[in-house]
Amino acid sequence: MKTFNVAIFGAGTVGGAVAKILLDLENALADRSTRIIKLKNIVDLFPGKNSERYNIPINLFCGGGKDLTREEASKFISEIIEDKGIDLVVETIGGTSDYLLSMILKVLNARKHVVTANKAMLAERGDVIFKTAKENNVTLGCEASVCGAIPIIKAIRESFTGDEVLEISGIMNGTSNYILSKMELEGIDFKSGLKMAQKAGFAEADPTLDITGGDAAHKLAILIRLAFGKEINYSDLAKEGIQNIETEDIEFANEMDCTIKLICHAKKVDGKIFAAVKPMMVKHGNFLSHVHGATNCVEVINKYSGRHYFMGAGAGGLETASAIVADIVFAARYGPNVGNTPASSQLELIDANHCEFPYNITFSTEDCPGVTGLVATAIGEQKINIDTVSHNRRNKKNAVFSVETMPCTMDQIKSAIALIRKKSPDLLVDEPKAIPILL
Amino acid sequence: MKTFNVAIFGAGTVGGAVAKILLDLENALADRSTRIIKLKNIVDLFPGKNSERYNIPINLFCGGGKDLTREEASKFISEIIEDKGIDLVVETIGGTSDYLLSMILKVLNARKHVVTANKAMLAERGDVIFKTAKENNVTLGCEASVCGAIPIIKAIRESFTGDEVLEISGIMNGTSNYILSKMELEGIDFKSGLKMAQKAGFAEADPTLDITGGDAAHKLAILIRLAFGKEINYSDLAKEGIQNIETEDIEFANEMDCTIKLICHAKKVDGKIFAAVKPMMVKHGNFLSHVHGATNCVEVINKYSGRHYFMGAGAGGLETASAIVADIVFAARYGPNVGNTPASSQLELIDANHCEFPYNITFSTEDCPGVTGLVATAIGEQKINIDTVSHNRRNKKNAVFSVETMPCTMDQIKSAIALIRKKSPDLLVDEPKAIPILL
Repeated sequence: MKTFNVAIFGAGTVGGAVAKILLDLENALADRSTRIIKLKNIVDLFPGKNSERYNIPINLFCGGGKDLTREEASKFISEIIEDKGIDLVVETIGGTSDYLLSMILKVLNARKHVVTANKAMLAERGDVIFKTAKENNVTLGCEASVCGAIPIIKAIRESFTGDEVLEISGIMNGTSNYILSKMELEGIDFKSGLKMAQKAGFAEADPTLDITGGDAAHKLAILIRLAFGKEINYSDLAKEGIQNIETEDIEFANEMDCTIKLICHAKKVDGKIFAAVKPMMVKHGNFLSHVHGATNCVEVINKYSGRHYFMGAGAGGLETASAIVADIVFAARYGPNVGNTPASSQLELIDANHCEFPYNITFSTEDCPGVTGLVATAIGEQKINIDTVSHNRRNKKNAVFSVETMPCTMDQIKSAIALIRKKSPDLLVDEPKAIPILL
Repeated sequence: MKTFNVAIFGAGTVGGAVAKILLDLENALADRSTRIIKLKNIVDLFPGKNSERYNIPINLFCGGGKDLTREEASKFISEIIEDKGIDLVVETIGGTSDYLLSMILKVLNARKHVVTANKAMLAERGDVIFKTAKENNVTLGCEASVCGAIPIIKAIRESFTGDEVLEISGIMNGTSNYILSKMELEGIDFKSGLKMAQKAGFAEADPTLDITGGDAAHKLAILIRLAFGKEINYSDLAKEGIQNIETEDIEFANEMDCTIKLICHAKKVDGKIFAAVKPMMVKHGNFLSHVHGATNCVEVINKYSGRHYFMGAGAGGLETASAIVADIVFAARYGPNVGNTPASSQLELIDANHCEFPYNITFSTEDCPGVTGLVATAIGEQKINIDTVSHNRRNKKNAVFSVETMPCTMDQIKSAIALIRKKSPDLLVDEPKAIPILL
C-alpha cells in the first residue's frame, strides 16, 4: 500500500484535532483511502502547549518541540513546501493575511493538495485559490470551511450533480443562533444573550464577525461559488446581523407562528442570484425554525429532488477536524483534483432585498383613530397585498402593530413608508421594522 | 472529452426519470463529470407507455419502440452486457428474482459499473453483489436505494471517513410515517390512515412490506453494511411494523412528550451491533419526532462530529432518479471502483431488543386498590428503575396507566410481566405494551 504524507500548518483547536484523528484512526483511514495516511510534520508556534491538548507526540512538531518565532515557522513551512515527499497540507492557521494567501498558493503550485477550514480566506480570495488548484490539478478540500462537520460541501459538489440547486437557506453561525435561541426561550435581551454566548465559549472576545453576519456571509459566499458556479466579491454580498433584534421582535415573531433566525439565503431566479445574510422570520412549518443553540442547519431546494435539510455541529475542534480528515481521505483515494469545481457561470448577483418575500412590518405609531387605515392604504397603494394586520398592542403610549404582507420587495416597502410619512408626518414614532418571512 | 455510455434496464417511474435527467442535463453533466454522459439504450417491456411519461425519444428503446416480450427484453439485455462500448448500467427493474441477480452479476463481471435503487436486492444479496463489484474493480452505486434523494450513502461512504459511526436512527419508510402522522395529527385509526396513504398514492395495493417494517429493514441492512462493514443476513434483522399501533398509544405518547415513529435503529456497542426496525416513542427534543408525512430523516451519531440529521424526500421518480444520476456522474468522473466498501468487520449482530432503552410500558389492569404498587414492585424486583408512573385513566372499566422506565432490556420487562402474572393471575386485562423511547 502506498503512503500518502500529510503536513499540518497550525495545530490549535482544529489543527491539533486533525493530528489526533489521523493518529487515532490510522488503520481505518488506510482501509478507507487505500493509502497509508502518514502525518509527517506539524508547524506550530507553540508545540509545548498544543501537543498536550490532544496528546500529540512532540517529535512530530518541526523544531523539536520548542516554541518557534514567526521566522522559524516560516522557514519550516518553506522546507515542507519544497519537500517532494509531502502530498497534502492542512492549513489551519486561519486569517486572511497576504502571507497566508501566498503560502497557500505556493503549496498548490508545488502540486500538493490543500485542505482548509479557512472560510474567510476562501470567501475573500477563493477566486485565485480555486483557480490555482485547478491549474495544478490538485485538490482543494474545504468541507470544514462551511458549517463544520455538516457535509454540505460534499452534498453540493458530489450528491446534487444529478440535479440543479435552486435555493439555499441556512443557519450557519452558531453564535448568533445561540443568542437568538436564548432570547426566544429565556426572554432575555440581545446584550445578555451575547454575554451568555461569550461565557459559554461560543462567542469570541470580539464577536463582531459573528453578530454582524460577516462569518455567515463567508460561508454563504463559498456555497454560492460551489452551488451556482458564481465568482462573487465577498464585499458585494449583502449582510445584516442580529445586533438590532429586540425582545419585542421575537415576541411578535412567535405570535405570527415564526421564529427569528439569522438566515444565509441565496436563490437562483431567471439567470440572477438573489443573496443576502439577514435576520428572517422563519415560519414554524419550516424546520429551520426549530434549530436552537449553536447547531447549524442548511436547507437546499433542488429542481428534481426538492427540499433537503442538513443539520449538525457547525463548529468545535474535533467536529471540524473530522471533516478535514474526510477531505484528506478523499484526496488520498481519488486525487488528483477531486471535487467538482463548477463551470463558472455568468449569473448576476443581486441583493436579496430586491427579491420578493412576504414581510412582517412592525409599526410604532401615535395611538389615534384612523392609523390602521392610513397605513394599510399606503401599503396598498404600493401594490403590496396585505395578508394580515394584527397584534395591536396598546400597552405603551403608542400603538404597536404588525402587518404581514404577501410577497413584495423591500423597495416597495420603503416607498410605502415614505408615503405614510408624507401623508402624516408625525404618525410614525420609530422607523418601521421590516423583516422578511421564510416559509 | 471522452464519452461515457449508459444503458438503462427498466424505464418505469424511476428509470424513466433517470433518462429524462440524463437528457435534460447533458451539458451540465459533462461539466460535472468531465465526460460526455451518453444515454445509449433503454430496455423496457412497454416503450410506448414509458416513453410518454417523461418525453423520452422512442428511438432510445431497444426494439424500435414496440412492446417487448420477456424473451426479447432478455436478448437485448444480453447484447448490451456484451457490448464493450457500454460503461455503466442503471438497474431499475426491481425485485429480487434469481434472473435479476444473475443479470446484475453478469453486468459487473463484464466490467461495467452498476447503479441501482434496488434496496431489496442489495439487502438480501448485497454480499455477492458488492464482492463481485470489488473483484471486477467497478462501481456499485446505490445512493438511491436508501431514502431516495437523501445523500445518506454518500455521507457514510465519503463524508464520515474521518470519523466513526456509532449509531444510526432513521425514519426510512414514507408510507408508515405518513400513516403515523395522520393518526397523530387527525386522530384517526391505523386502518383509516392506511386507506388515506393508499388514496394519496404512497402505499402499494399490497402494503405489507411498508407497514410490517420490511422495506425499512432493507434500508437499514444496507446502512449497517456500509457504516459498520458488517455482512448481515437480512432475515436476521429484527423487524416489527406499525400495524398494531392504536390511537390510544399515540395519545399516551403525546402525553409523555413523545411521538410514535417507525425507527430503523443500529448502534455499535463493545464490538456488537444492536439493530432493529420497530415503533419507538421519540422524545420531542429529538428532531425525528417532528418529521411528518412521507418525508424521510436519518440521524447519525459519530464519535468525533456528534449528531447529524439528513432529511428529504425518501421516494418519488425524479427524486430517486437525481440520486442515481449523481452516482453515474461520480462513476464517470472517478471510476473505477469508486465508493468505499468498508473492510468487513467481525461485529456481532444482535436484536436491539436485547439492548437497553428507556421504555414506556402501558398496562391495562383490573381497577382495584393496590394495582400500582404491585406492578411497580414487580418492575423494581427485575432491577428496572422507574422514571415516572402516570396517566392513570379510569375512563374504561379497567385502569390504564403507563410506566416510563430508566434504560433496561425487553428481557427484563418480560420477566417483570411474568412476575405480575404470577403474583396476581387475573390482574392484567391485556398483554402490556412496551415501546422503547428514543431520546
